[in-house]
Amino acid sequence: MNQHSDQIPPEAEIDDDVYILDRSTVSNILDAVEAGDQQALSVLMDPLHAADIADLLEQITQSDRADLIQLYDREFDGEILSELDESLREEVIGFLRPDVLAEAVRELESDDVVDIVEDLDEPHQEAILEHLEDADRVAVEQALAYPEDSAGRLMQRETAWAPEHWNVGQCIDHLRNAEELPEQFYHVILVDPKMRPLGNVTLGRIMSSHRDTRLSDIVEEMFQVIPVNQDEEDVAYAFNQYHLISAPVVDESERLVGVITIDDAMSVLDEEHEEDILRLAGVSEGSLSDTVSETARQRFPWLGVNLFTAILASVVIALFEGTIEKYVALAVLMPIVASMGGNAGTQTLTVAVRAIATKDLTGANVWRVIRREVFVGLLNGLAFAIVMGAVGVLWFGSMELGYVIAAAMVANLVVAGFAGTVVPVLLEKMGVDPALASGTFVTTVTDVVGFFAFLGLASIMLT
Amino acid sequence: MNQHSDQIPPEAEIDDDVYILDRSTVSNILDAVEAGDQQALSVLMDPLHAADIADLLEQITQSDRADLIQLYDREFDGEILSELDESLREEVIGFLRPDVLAEAVRELESDDVVDIVEDLDEPHQEAILEHLEDADRVAVEQALAYPEDSAGRLMQRETAWAPEHWNVGQCIDHLRNAEELPEQFYHVILVDPKMRPLGNVTLGRIMSSHRDTRLSDIVEEMFQVIPVNQDEEDVAYAFNQYHLISAPVVDESERLVGVITIDDAMSVLDEEHEEDILRLAGVSEGSLSDTVSETARQRFPWLGVNLFTAILASVVIALFEGTIEKYVALAVLMPIVASMGGNAGTQTLTVAVRAIATKDLTGANVWRVIRREVFVGLLNGLAFAIVMGAVGVLWFGSMELGYVIAAAMVANLVVAGFAGTVVPVLLEKMGVDPALASGTFVTTVTDVVGFFAFLGLASIMLT
Repeated sequence: MNQHSDQIPPEAEIDDDVYILDRSTVSNILDAVEAGDQQALSVLMDPLHAADIADLLEQITQSDRADLIQLYDREFDGEILSELDESLREEVIGFLRPDVLAEAVRELESDDVVDIVEDLDEPHQEAILEHLEDADRVAVEQALAYPEDSAGRLMQRETAWAPEHWNVGQCIDHLRNAEELPEQFYHVILVDPKMRPLGNVTLGRIMSSHRDTRLSDIVEEMFQVIPVNQDEEDVAYAFNQYHLISAPVVDESERLVGVITIDDAMSVLDEEHEEDILRLAGVSEGSLSDTVSETARQRFPWLGVNLFTAILASVVIALFEGTIEKYVALAVLMPIVASMGGNAGTQTLTVAVRAIATKDLTGANVWRVIRREVFVGLLNGLAFAIVMGAVGVLWFGSMELGYVIAAAMVANLVVAGFAGTVVPVLLEKMGVDPALASGTFVTTVTDVVGFFAFLGLASIMLT
Repeated sequence: MNQHSDQIPPEAEIDDDVYILDRSTVSNILDAVEAGDQQALSVLMDPLHAADIADLLEQITQSDRADLIQLYDREFDGEILSELDESLREEVIGFLRPDVLAEAVRELESDDVVDIVEDLDEPHQEAILEHLEDADRVAVEQALAYPEDSAGRLMQRETAWAPEHWNVGQCIDHLRNAEELPEQFYHVILVDPKMRPLGNVTLGRIMSSHRDTRLSDIVEEMFQVIPVNQDEEDVAYAFNQYHLISAPVVDESERLVGVITIDDAMSVLDEEHEEDILRLAGVSEGSLSDTVSETARQRFPWLGVNLFTAILASVVIALFEGTIEKYVALAVLMPIVASMGGNAGTQTLTVAVRAIATKDLTGANVWRVIRREVFVGLLNGLAFAIVMGAVGVLWFGSMELGYVIAAAMVANLVVAGFAGTVVPVLLEKMGVDPALASGTFVTTVTDVVGFFAFLGLASIMLT
C-alpha cells in the first residue's frame, strides 16, 4: 500500500455500511466491460478496496474476468492477487501482462508474496519470482523452505527489536533512524545478546512513557514465543486464546527470526473454520468459481464413501426382507429411524469436533462427555419413543409396532450419542481430521444399529 | 493485567509448545483440591494464563469447581471471568466472596465488564455493577444502552486521537502527558474540529517519522469507520475483509465515540463461526459444561422438527405400500436413495451457507451458482446412476430395478443441487439465518422427491 500520500486520500473513506459489492456496482462494471468503456471502468473500480476487487473477480464468469482485466490494463494492485481465491490466482496471473505482473508483486510484502507463490505451479511461480528484487526473492525462497502451513511461511522477516537494557529514548531514536522496519508493527521485541526474545513492549507504552524509562520496566505481562515450525493452526489458536497482537517467531536455537501479527492469525483462523465447516459436510475443497466438472469431481469421493456405507445399511435391511414383506409398515417407518439417529449423531459429533478443535474436549474430560452424551441420547430417546410409539399405534393400529419403534428410537439415540463422541475422539487420536471423516462413520453406525434394532425387534415381536 | 511489573516476570514466558492444559496438570490440580493442599494448588495455578484457568474450570465438574475456587480463596483474576464460557459465569460468580469479586471486576477494562455483565441476570449484574467505581459503572451502563451484539457493546471508550493539523512531535508530547489512554492502542485517530474521524496513523509510522512530519502526511491508506449501531458480525467481517487493526466507532452525527480493536473482532469472528457450525448441525446453543437435562432440552427442538419432516417422507412411502409389498427390494434400496440425496444436498447447502456468510454468493451470481449446482448434481447423478444401476441389476437380477434406481439417483441429485442452493438463499432473503434452518428443509425436499421418484417410477415400470 502507498503509505506516502500527500493528503488524506478521499478514496480512503469507504461508505459506512457498504462492505459488500452491491449488485448494481457489479452490473455497472460488467456493462462498462461489455461496452469497452475504459474510463467508466476506472471510475467504478477506483473506490474499491483490493479485497472487494478480488470478490468481484470471483463473482463473475471466466470470460468476463478476462475482458475486465484486459480492458482495465493498468497498474494492478498486488493485494488483489493476495486476496483472490487460490483457485483463480493462476488464471488471473495468466491474464496479466508480464510488466504489470512484475509491478504488482514488487510492491507486496514478502509474506504476501509467499502466500501467493506457494500455491502456484512451477512456471507461474517462476514468473513471479523472477520479477522480484534479489533480496526479496531470497526472502521468499527462504520462507518456502519452511514446511507448508508452518509459522515460518506465515511470519514477516522484518522485526522491530531492541536490546533488553535500552530505555525508551534510545528505542525511539533507533526506530526513527532504522532502515528496515516492518510496514506494520505493534511491539518492540526485547532480546538478549544472543537475539533470544525476552518480552514485548507495546508502542503505546513506549510513546506514553518518559525517555529514561527502561524498556524492561514496561514489558507486557503476556508474552508468547512461536517456534518457526509450528503448525499455523496452533499459531491461530494461541493468538485467539491469549489475545496476542503480535508474537516473535524463533528458530531451534530460540533466536528471533521473524514476527507474526494478529491479522495473519485471523486469516488462518477464518480459513481453518471454513475448512472445518466444509469438511463436516463432506466437501473438502473448492470454491464458487470452480467449473461444474471440477466441482463434481471434488464432491464425488465423499458421495462414493456415502454410497458404500448406505449399501451397508441396505444389507442390514435385506436380512429382514421376509419380515418387511409381511409388515410393509416397517418400510414406511424405516426412514424415521434412520433420520432421527443420523440427526442426533450429527448434533453430537459436531459438538465433539468443535470441542476438539477448541481444545475443550481433552483426555481430562472425555469420559465425562461421552457419559453425558449417552444420557442425553437416552433422555431424548425416551421422549421420542413416546411420540413415535403413539404415531405407530395411531397410524398402523398395532400396539406391538408402537413398542418396536419406541425401543428402536431409544437404542438409536443412545448409540448416536456414544458414536457421535467416540468416533471423532478416536479419529483425532489416530491423526485423522475428525471434521473430515466423522460424519460418514457416525451415520453408518446409527443407520446399521438403527435398522438392526428396529427390524430385528420387529422380526421377534411381530411374528 | 498488571502492566507495571518491576522486572520481566518469570511467569510471562509460557512453555513453547504447551498451549493446552495437559491431562496431568488438570489431574494434579484436582488432586491438590481433593487433598485441600492450598499451597500445591497455588504453585500449579500460578503459571496458567487466565484463558487456561477458564478452560480448566470448564473441563471439571461443578463440585470440583466449587471446591477449587473455595480452596484457591485469593485474588481472582477478572480476566478468568471474561474468558469463561457464558454458561458458567453465573455459577462461578456465585462461588466468589463479595470482596474477591469486587477486586476481580475492578481491574477489568470497561468493555470486558460489559461483555461479562450483559449475559448475567439482574441480581448478578447488580452484584458486579455495585463494586465498580462510579465512572466505570456509568461507562458500563452507557455501553449496555446500545443494542445487543452492536459495535457499541464491543468498543472501548478510551481513544487516542489528535487534531488533523498536528505534527508527530506534538502528538508524541501529548501522548506522553495524556491521562486517559486506552490500555492497548495501535493507531492515533485524526479528527476534525467536530471530532469526526478522518484517518488512522499507525504508532509505528509515528515513531519512525521525524518530529516535524505532519500526521496527515503519514495517514494510512485504508481507513474504515464503524457506526455504533452496526451489528458485531458485520464489524468482524470488515476487520477480516480489509485487514483492519483498529477502527474508530462513530455515533449518528459521525463523532468519534470509541474504538474497536482486531482482537475483539477476532473473538466475534470465532463465535460467529462456532454458531454457524453448530447451527448447521441443528444445535443452536450450549456448551460441554451444560448438564444432561439442559443439553437434552437444547437438542430436542431440532430433533422434533426432523421427526416431523421424516414423517412427511414416510407418508410418501406409504403411498406406495402396495408396490413395496410386491417388490421388497425397493425397501432395501430406499435408504440409499435418501442417503445420497441428503448427502449431496448437505454438501451444496453448506457451500451456499458459507458463501452467503462470506458475501461471495450475492444477487450478482446467484443464478449462475444455482445453474452450476444443478449441473454438478446432474453429472454426479449420472455417475452414481451407472454404479447403482449395476448394483441393482447384480444384486436383485432385475434390469427394470436397475433403471428405476438409476433414474431416481439422477433426479435426486439434481434436486439436491437445486434445493441446496435455493433454500439458503430464500431463507437469507426472508431474514432467517440460513445456517439454522437450511438442513431440515433441504433434506425434507431430497427425501420426499427421492422417495417419490424412486417408488413412483418403480410402480410404473415394475408393474
